Amino acid sequence: MIAIILGLLAVVYGIFTSRQVLGAGAGNEKMQEIAGAIQEGAKAYLNRQYTTIGIVGVVVAVLVGVFLGWLSAIGFVIGAVLSGVAGYIGMNISVKANVRTAAAAQSGLQQGLTLAFRAGAITGMLVAGLALLAIAVFFWVLINPLAHEPNSREVIDALVALAFGASLISIFARLGGGIFTKAADVGADLVGKVEAGIPEDDPRNPAVIADNVGDNVGDCAGMAADLFETYVVTVGATMVLTALLLSGLGELLLPMMALPLLIGGACIVTSIIGTYAVKLSKGKTNVMGAMYKGFGLTAVLSVPLIWFVMQLALGDMSAEIGGSNLGAVDAGAPLAEEGTSSIAPFTGWDLFYSSVIGLVLTGVIIWITEYYTGTGFRPVRSIAKASETGHGTNVIQGLAISLESTALPTLAIVAGIIGAYQFAGLMGIAYAATSMLALAGMVVALDAYGPVTDNAGGIAEMAGLDDSVREKTDMLDAVGNTTKAVTKGYAIGSAGLAALVLFAAYTADLAEFFPDVDVDFSLENPYVIVGLLLGALLPYLFGAMGMTAVGRAAGDVVKDVRAQFKEKPGIMDYSEKPDYARTVDLVTKAAIKEMIVPSLLPVLAPIVLYFVITAIAGQQNGFAALGALLLGVIVGGLFVALSMTAGGGAWDNAKKYIEDGNHGGKGSEAHKAAVTGDTVGDPYKDTAGPAVNPMIKITNIVALLLLAALAGGAA
Amino acid sequence: MIAIILGLLAVVYGIFTSRQVLGAGAGNEKMQEIAGAIQEGAKAYLNRQYTTIGIVGVVVAVLVGVFLGWLSAIGFVIGAVLSGVAGYIGMNISVKANVRTAAAAQSGLQQGLTLAFRAGAITGMLVAGLALLAIAVFFWVLINPLAHEPNSREVIDALVALAFGASLISIFARLGGGIFTKAADVGADLVGKVEAGIPEDDPRNPAVIADNVGDNVGDCAGMAADLFETYVVTVGATMVLTALLLSGLGELLLPMMALPLLIGGACIVTSIIGTYAVKLSKGKTNVMGAMYKGFGLTAVLSVPLIWFVMQLALGDMSAEIGGSNLGAVDAGAPLAEEGTSSIAPFTGWDLFYSSVIGLVLTGVIIWITEYYTGTGFRPVRSIAKASETGHGTNVIQGLAISLESTALPTLAIVAGIIGAYQFAGLMGIAYAATSMLALAGMVVALDAYGPVTDNAGGIAEMAGLDDSVREKTDMLDAVGNTTKAVTKGYAIGSAGLAALVLFAAYTADLAEFFPDVDVDFSLENPYVIVGLLLGALLPYLFGAMGMTAVGRAAGDVVKDVRAQFKEKPGIMDYSEKPDYARTVDLVTKAAIKEMIVPSLLPVLAPIVLYFVITAIAGQQNGFAALGALLLGVIVGGLFVALSMTAGGGAWDNAKKYIEDGNHGGKGSEAHKAAVTGDTVGDPYKDTAGPAVNPMIKITNIVALLLLAALAGGAA
Repeated sequence: MIAIILGLLAVVYGIFTSRQVLGAGAGNEKMQEIAGAIQEGAKAYLNRQYTTIGIVGVVVAVLVGVFLGWLSAIGFVIGAVLSGVAGYIGMNISVKANVRTAAAAQSGLQQGLTLAFRAGAITGMLVAGLALLAIAVFFWVLINPLAHEPNSREVIDALVALAFGASLISIFARLGGGIFTKAADVGADLVGKVEAGIPEDDPRNPAVIADNVGDNVGDCAGMAADLFETYVVTVGATMVLTALLLSGLGELLLPMMALPLLIGGACIVTSIIGTYAVKLSKGKTNVMGAMYKGFGLTAVLSVPLIWFVMQLALGDMSAEIGGSNLGAVDAGAPLAEEGTSSIAPFTGWDLFYSSVIGLVLTGVIIWITEYYTGTGFRPVRSIAKASETGHGTNVIQGLAISLESTALPTLAIVAGIIGAYQFAGLMGIAYAATSMLALAGMVVALDAYGPVTDNAGGIAEMAGLDDSVREKTDMLDAVGNTTKAVTKGYAIGSAGLAALVLFAAYTADLAEFFPDVDVDFSLENPYVIVGLLLGALLPYLFGAMGMTAVGRAAGDVVKDVRAQFKEKPGIMDYSEKPDYARTVDLVTKAAIKEMIVPSLLPVLAPIVLYFVITAIAGQQNGFAALGALLLGVIVGGLFVALSMTAGGGAWDNAKKYIEDGNHGGKGSEAHKAAVTGDTVGDPYKDTAGPAVNPMIKITNIVALLLLAALAGGAA
Repeated sequence: MIAIILGLLAVVYGIFTSRQVLGAGAGNEKMQEIAGAIQEGAKAYLNRQYTTIGIVGVVVAVLVGVFLGWLSAIGFVIGAVLSGVAGYIGMNISVKANVRTAAAAQSGLQQGLTLAFRAGAITGMLVAGLALLAIAVFFWVLINPLAHEPNSREVIDALVALAFGASLISIFARLGGGIFTKAADVGADLVGKVEAGIPEDDPRNPAVIADNVGDNVGDCAGMAADLFETYVVTVGATMVLTALLLSGLGELLLPMMALPLLIGGACIVTSIIGTYAVKLSKGKTNVMGAMYKGFGLTAVLSVPLIWFVMQLALGDMSAEIGGSNLGAVDAGAPLAEEGTSSIAPFTGWDLFYSSVIGLVLTGVIIWITEYYTGTGFRPVRSIAKASETGHGTNVIQGLAISLESTALPTLAIVAGIIGAYQFAGLMGIAYAATSMLALAGMVVALDAYGPVTDNAGGIAEMAGLDDSVREKTDMLDAVGNTTKAVTKGYAIGSAGLAALVLFAAYTADLAEFFPDVDVDFSLENPYVIVGLLLGALLPYLFGAMGMTAVGRAAGDVVKDVRAQFKEKPGIMDYSEKPDYARTVDLVTKAAIKEMIVPSLLPVLAPIVLYFVITAIAGQQNGFAALGALLLGVIVGGLFVALSMTAGGGAWDNAKKYIEDGNHGGKGSEAHKAAVTGDTVGDPYKDTAGPAVNPMIKITNIVALLLLAALAGGAA
């Protein structure tokens, strides 16, 4: 109940701040006209995207209903609809805040920052708030009006189905939005900058509105759906794991299952407080520093508040939970030493320390990402320097950095896993993941700020505002590149922890559904290796599809723009207006067509693998290979996603660093090479890389649903 | 004994064919002068490289001697020295055959092909022959004059040490040679083609000799050491696994341990026969087709010959081997179902079918690699087409292809693992890997042909031969790009199988050395996940270091060439000669300096991981994490290596495809973009990608040696 109230608080904050943002001045008529075109394009895209997803969603909902019952179908629908709503509202705020940020930047950097960040914060709070509400209300309805036991199959399956709904929408939104935004961006750059020789964001380029629409549907709506999904899956998985592993808890079961929700609620409060700390220091222009102040305050305040809600839920923080006082816990759970119960006893304090590890890990990942993508450090500067010797060396150095950038986050994640496991075993890892995700409100706020400033710069350029305005929006936007990379690193890092929790849920489910099937998950079983290899292949294949899709759609954009220049020769001397809507429409159709097949890959792969291996080598090896697939996809996907997102961000900021006047500045040979690197990094960081995160989760959730469906069929 | 004779046969073939090659005309004086410079540079590099490796080698040999005894130290030295010899001789033939191929190409395509391919075949037969001799003679000495039991610890440890010696040299040679060749290549291109506007292989470019030297020390000497290592490790691991798992065989033990050697010997015979089938069909110019004829004949002839040697060794092909008639086999071995013995009984026929799977898998991988890197298929053409819209889209499409190219080989490897396992369990996988490697003689022949033709083209250009000669060498060279990619795909594919064998050896060793430590290799153990993640990280970090090293060394080349142009302004009008040796010397120093740290990564990582995890979570988890690291490095490395080698080959041939007159041909914008892609692909395919293969093996072997050392310390 407290969690529901806190979730509502986030929504109220969202509504309240929306009024503030929408109340700000929207600039002159020309600016409003441009912003109107962006709004229209973004809405047209999202409407068509959600219609397409809706059709897939109805089919899947019916399938879920048939195989797993109507409660699960409802869960699926709730997850799917709210994920869509989060993206939709976020996009709506974003397309209205962009022009207002451009207008506010006329008054000063602080004004622009405040407006753009508030817009981001609305999306952030709505994502976290709606996600929390979705789980909390659904859980409450299941156990109170419907009077199911908290650890009954109905509740567990319904929570998993809820997560599935969120994930399925999220992968479509991430991928469709990602293809849209980068096809438009790459296409516009190729035909505008390279062929026609007109600057970025020039109103004569017919693809320029599509490019700005892309920022909103990809970086804002897609990202919001992604983080909504990550939140729901992580918190939901922690609750499911509690129900599965700690079923002998008695009276403590309900508070233990509600505790992740309470942590989420507590961090919403601290995130809201944190948003008010995002202010430039007097007379300074360190935008990233302002962001850090907000994040730091949120993280620090979260520590005592998490302690407080734990105390509230558990009563005695030093009492032992789990361990030998529990009955049916050892089945399927990891065995530290054979014969002893896996769920070694842990205390409230252990859970608390594990949660703190999650908070620290979030901070560490943010810091590492800034190192790899910020203009002040070695990696970005080395790419900028390599641009001096040409396109080839720029790309080589960028690829080297993108490979290298996986090392520190992996070490941090490994340290987090070991630390949390030492405190409270698997539950410790689950709590570290939960507290990481609890900060999602603040992290999304940092990210959603990006497309607003990016658009603001575009509007300033197109509306012919004073150069000083564009300078300010550029300063805001450079930070946006880093915060966008940060969010992706954070999402994939949390996925690393969440995947372990989901795998534990898979093994626990397996033990419950198929107690007679003795599954050997040992690395000595070749079918485990087969599963690991095929799992690791998925992100590669998925990345290849995403990159190819962007290339193909960008090619369509180039052709359309060329055709427009030919049909309307007056465009170049401003005597004719390009048909922006036509390009938007074209990219829309292309993106939606291209998103279908790759999105189905992680849905179908686990099902196909299970049936093929079962046919060849029996059900116990089918389950083993399927389980290994789940871990293979995270082992492979973590590196693909980290390298793509950090590498892409580094390429982008290397270009910005050169544009700031280093290595020859704008127009130099080094700059041209850096533009190539940026183009390469675009689909890396905004299409293929970030979509790996929902892909990992989908694979895991489909496996859980497959188990439930098989058990239902067997029963 | 038979194996020793057949090994000697390969060496005799090598010597005999060398005479043929060296007896061919060496061209005019100018050609000989250029070839002399290349020979001198290559020798200077290899001498310095082997000196450096020698110092490291002596230190390691002493360490091996102290921890594992003098027999192992001798094994290490034999492996190391013969690996070096294989590389050295291969390089020597290559630098002499290049000029002769250029001379022969003056007479016709067939003449050029014959000479270049014979040169490749010498290296191929020497690699396979020396590798076979190294194991066979050492094994024979151990069990006959020294009278050790075939499955005694002394023999097993000594064989592992032999493999370690080969691997350690191989990683240095692969990486050092790879850095040398690509630093010279990229550096020469950047400063020559881009800055000075002179064509490739122009004698005015001071880096041009270094570039040609690089082909020999990287693609020939480095590759030879790599395949020598792969051969020794795979065959050795199969023998070790036989000794560990089938210790209860009695009289059959010795023939079973010698059988992998016999298979190797049999395939040397078929490889020699196959080399004579490499001929152009009358009036045709399909060079790849000629190669296929030779390979196909070898593979087809190998089937009955393998059957014959199996019959010879085992007597009754239908008699059961392994299974319940064996005593101490279940410890540490994979359990298909708990409680039953892992080594299910298998027959000689099962081993035969598994071997055939290895042969088929080799063919399939070659076919897939040709699809992804040949100019006649979609992948290369899609990159060429994407070049029309600029540098950025070329690189994007190349990266997409490189990601995609991992899918089919992985599926083929997975199918091979499942098939071989179904026939004869782990021993089936070991035999599939052995028969794959048995074809190494032929595969190396195809590969070593590449640098010869590449050099021949360079010499033709520099010596100002008729354009028709260059045309012929270009036709030969385009196939060389594909065969080089094929060898790398083959090496890494076989590494996928060999890694499973090595992991099985690890678990079997563990069970023997530490019977009281109960190691949980289940995916449910978080330390297994930690090991998998860190293992998968190694190829990324290693790749990053390799790419950065190439960038840095290429930068040095650029500076040196610029300095030479400045000091000797007469170079451009041919009135002064550039100082080729100075550039060679500079690249030599840079490559040797840069190879050290990345090469030590896979040696130290397993040791550090074991001690850190043991300190945190006890020895059983230290062993579990270490085992998982071994599989993590193959799961991560397989994809990194496959994507880099196939992607790089595709980029290279996309450039060649455009140079053949497509998409605007030489000098067009598309060509410029394709040159960028080729530059990016260079360190991908020739430095970072191929070095992953020895890296995987080193990590595994170090783990085996660590176990032996720990056991020795404990005893």
